[in-house]
Amino acid sequence: MGLAAQLSRFLPCLEWGRGYTRETLVSDVTAAVIVTIMLIPQSLAYAMLAGLPPEVGLYASMMPLVLYAVFGTSRTLAVGPVAVASLMSAAAVGAVVKQGTTGYVEASILLALLSAAWLLLMGFFRLGFLANFLSHPVISGFISASGILIAVSQLKHVLGVKASGHTLPEVVSSLGANLQDANGYTLLIGASCLAFLWFVRLRLGKLLASLGVPKGMAGFIVKAGPVLTVIVTILVTSLWQLDREGVAIVGAVPAGLPAFTFNLPGLELVKTLLLPAFLISVIGFVESVSVAQTLAAKRRQRIDPNQELIALGAANLGSGLSGGYVVTGGFARSVVNFDAGAQTPAAGVFTAVGMAVATLFLTPLIHYLPKATLAATIIVAVLALVDFRMMREIWVYSKQDFLAMAATVALTLGVSVEVGVASGVILSVLLHLYKSSRPHCAVVGLVPGTEHFRNILRHEVETCETIVTLRIDESLYFANARFLEDKVYSLLAANAKLKHVVLMCPAVNEIDASALESLEAINHRLASAGVKFHLSEVKGPVMDRLKRSHFLEALSGQVFLSQYQAYRTLAS
Amino acid sequence: MGLAAQLSRFLPCLEWGRGYTRETLVSDVTAAVIVTIMLIPQSLAYAMLAGLPPEVGLYASMMPLVLYAVFGTSRTLAVGPVAVASLMSAAAVGAVVKQGTTGYVEASILLALLSAAWLLLMGFFRLGFLANFLSHPVISGFISASGILIAVSQLKHVLGVKASGHTLPEVVSSLGANLQDANGYTLLIGASCLAFLWFVRLRLGKLLASLGVPKGMAGFIVKAGPVLTVIVTILVTSLWQLDREGVAIVGAVPAGLPAFTFNLPGLELVKTLLLPAFLISVIGFVESVSVAQTLAAKRRQRIDPNQELIALGAANLGSGLSGGYVVTGGFARSVVNFDAGAQTPAAGVFTAVGMAVATLFLTPLIHYLPKATLAATIIVAVLALVDFRMMREIWVYSKQDFLAMAATVALTLGVSVEVGVASGVILSVLLHLYKSSRPHCAVVGLVPGTEHFRNILRHEVETCETIVTLRIDESLYFANARFLEDKVYSLLAANAKLKHVVLMCPAVNEIDASALESLEAINHRLASAGVKFHLSEVKGPVMDRLKRSHFLEALSGQVFLSQYQAYRTLAS
Repeated sequence: MGLAAQLSRFLPCLEWGRGYTRETLVSDVTAAVIVTIMLIPQSLAYAMLAGLPPEVGLYASMMPLVLYAVFGTSRTLAVGPVAVASLMSAAAVGAVVKQGTTGYVEASILLALLSAAWLLLMGFFRLGFLANFLSHPVISGFISASGILIAVSQLKHVLGVKASGHTLPEVVSSLGANLQDANGYTLLIGASCLAFLWFVRLRLGKLLASLGVPKGMAGFIVKAGPVLTVIVTILVTSLWQLDREGVAIVGAVPAGLPAFTFNLPGLELVKTLLLPAFLISVIGFVESVSVAQTLAAKRRQRIDPNQELIALGAANLGSGLSGGYVVTGGFARSVVNFDAGAQTPAAGVFTAVGMAVATLFLTPLIHYLPKATLAATIIVAVLALVDFRMMREIWVYSKQDFLAMAATVALTLGVSVEVGVASGVILSVLLHLYKSSRPHCAVVGLVPGTEHFRNILRHEVETCETIVTLRIDESLYFANARFLEDKVYSLLAANAKLKHVVLMCPAVNEIDASALESLEAINHRLASAGVKFHLSEVKGPVMDRLKRSHFLEALSGQVFLSQYQAYRTLAS
Repeated sequence: MGLAAQLSRFLPCLEWGRGYTRETLVSDVTAAVIVTIMLIPQSLAYAMLAGLPPEVGLYASMMPLVLYAVFGTSRTLAVGPVAVASLMSAAAVGAVVKQGTTGYVEASILLALLSAAWLLLMGFFRLGFLANFLSHPVISGFISASGILIAVSQLKHVLGVKASGHTLPEVVSSLGANLQDANGYTLLIGASCLAFLWFVRLRLGKLLASLGVPKGMAGFIVKAGPVLTVIVTILVTSLWQLDREGVAIVGAVPAGLPAFTFNLPGLELVKTLLLPAFLISVIGFVESVSVAQTLAAKRRQRIDPNQELIALGAANLGSGLSGGYVVTGGFARSVVNFDAGAQTPAAGVFTAVGMAVATLFLTPLIHYLPKATLAATIIVAVLALVDFRMMREIWVYSKQDFLAMAATVALTLGVSVEVGVASGVILSVLLHLYKSSRPHCAVVGLVPGTEHFRNILRHEVETCETIVTLRIDESLYFANARFLEDKVYSLLAANAKLKHVVLMCPAVNEIDASALESLEAINHRLASAGVKFHLSEVKGPVMDRLKRSHFLEALSGQVFLSQYQAYRTLAS
């Protein structure tokens, strides 16, 4: 690879930047305007969800977008604050520092920096494959459970009551205990916003279409729904001074762009946040790459997962250093960005400019923004993540996958987000190992008149009482080596006239050191019972490796190229 | 299964007990005498290794043997105190309670009871397969490292100095610091025993054979070596009263049989010992089953691993309740038992009787037994466990397996036995998942004039530029689902004229929910790029399951029975 090619693999912006035209510019700016309108309320809302002051959400929506544009391989991914990462940030930081303190903000920023460190590290060592350990049922269960948890935790803002807790039972009982303090005005604002946003989300598009509004315009109006609720509730609250009636508002937000900030953190805090930062990074990465791949495939573009780690790492580094918190690629905004016609990551840069303008000039206006409005925005957004249909489908398709998912959901809701996702991963790995500890195998016999061998239980085949042939349909490794031993010994115990055991290996891609030792043990034990051990149809690379061991020298029998040849030789 | 058959599966003694004859009795008693002679010094030595008073070792050599005889499926396994489990017991208990206190003995007994609980639990839920996660390289590395650690830790008794520590560097530096306190008499006894035992182990057999001593007699003399050192050093020490010269001796050992003991333990202690107990149980189980299977295969007998869990659980329960500590099936004694002609587990019962007699009548005699003698017995026994040759062979055979083994050895020696074995297990699982996250697959084409399809990179094959066929050689599951997606998208990006992608699945035994979702994503994304997605050669059970999902309805292409049919249909 030439230097230029290597450089543009590391800096994908060099590639798309070269072919940048006026048409691309127009598309990107149009998309950026729409995404900015969506991002303003979202950035404020997700900051609230993360337990942070609103400006932290705004700061997290500038630098990260610019850095992703430089390093990212997706043309249309919209990076920034997202719901699940915000919840995880709140859970991780809330477990160490009390919300509302400066320490809390600093710890949230530190979490973004640690997440950046993990992502960059994994990218540097090309460990993108680690994300594969998160099975779809676990992710899906985790996202659904997080959605429920987030929605319930935001109800306090809609009701205007105090509530706390990090698990579903805690939050619900805390809500129940404080229900008598509910504020009528807050509830009115929150419930109206919820109703309006639901209407916009589910009905408005169709209504506008039936009224003959052009599709593009209708889409824009639907996307502007949250901004509209923001504007209207600000007006209502400020005109009637509802904050004096107990409606919680966002309050003063410092105007101006974020400055470079870095506080040397305490080592103890770093230690505590290291594991949560890892989990947030991996989950954010998986979600982000999956969105990016969906969008890229539509235009036959490629996503490089390891470069995505670098890009998301850079984005989080930028976020942490400019006073923001953890960011990743968001599903909803990315789809909007794509649909609005974004052609290159430059759209992200323009969105960042839009956010900067908003931060400079609009922050005084959001002083009266009710928290209930933001909570309603969050609830409507996250309930779309809850996918009961998927749960039913997985139940029908695989009980085992369902078990992993159910454990993830139950532990995420009942214990903590970290325990939920970690248990899901461990459980799915264990279940997989359990499954593969019983490899597919069959005792086979010759189909008369052919050279084919088939399962003796399913076909009329020819066998010989001094020979047993066991066909193994999977690679042999430590988890199934013992199963193979057990299988062979039970065949040995069941066949008194046995003289030859043939292991037929047409589907064995690998034999690891544990399986090799099992084969040696089988060979040795069969020999001490006066039975010879043979192999047949061993693949080339597997054979090459066996030659590096002493196994073939010690083998009591032979290695046959074909099973037919083995049968003819041994039966004669 | 009839009641009788079920009962004798749970109580294997019912089966062998029925056919018990006078000949069997003679064989069993003979073997028991030899094993008892071996077990007396070993039980004292391993108790010392576990940091326990000598009688605890004796107690652990009675009840457990009887209970294993009732529940065990091996005819010849010799259960009792073993080196590695004793080391692990010392490490686990030593981390919580100070050695030499009553609390220490009680905690060691509790560890045996917890180990019993784990074993019975695993046996009850038939979780014997869990042992499969311990790969051979990890076990082998762990046993070798433990052997080194034990040998070095016993050097203090040979030198007559004080030393402490649970890691190799700690023990070595502690030995070095106290070297000036070495006791000449102790060193003389220890070194003589070491030299004599080495000679007995390596040379005596051959020497006796060359002198014309019959093989059985020669074997008996070799096995009596340790007992001989015990007798001689007791005589020497008591005659010259060497204990007054600073030679550490065993001291007073309470005579009499163990009584039933149970102290309600503190919950905190239970919590701390739960994980070590689990590790000891699993490692003990693996070693024990592997010995049992080796011996059973020689006589074409069967071992039931899940019943072995029950039997070892009962043995540890019996040990804990009668004042003993953790026990498992030992390699050396079992081989001796087998070679000496033991026919049934009744040999174990007779050994237990022998140990009871020894405990009743011989304990006053071992008062003057020097600890150096016991240490020499241990050192010679455990150095046989250290297997450098195996390490070299694994290095040659598989670098990846070697990595798991090296990590186990380094962490066992340098950090702790628990961390060592746990890291080994985790690392080998991760390495396996990493490997299987990149399944074997190949783009294939038609071998002209046949119906066979082969890798286009290795064979001269016919292809069609609108069709790409990808053959997958492994089951599809969460760890490799994303790899498949990446692969298909890169094929899509590389072939501009592509119209059809065919996934050929002759070796796919399973598609889990994650892989199903990946297939759905591939189908969806290919469709949005105007490419159809097909499957070919899907196995019956896999197809049955796919029918339970919505995948086949949504599939843009078709499912072909044979790849040839797919090619002919799509290329035309």
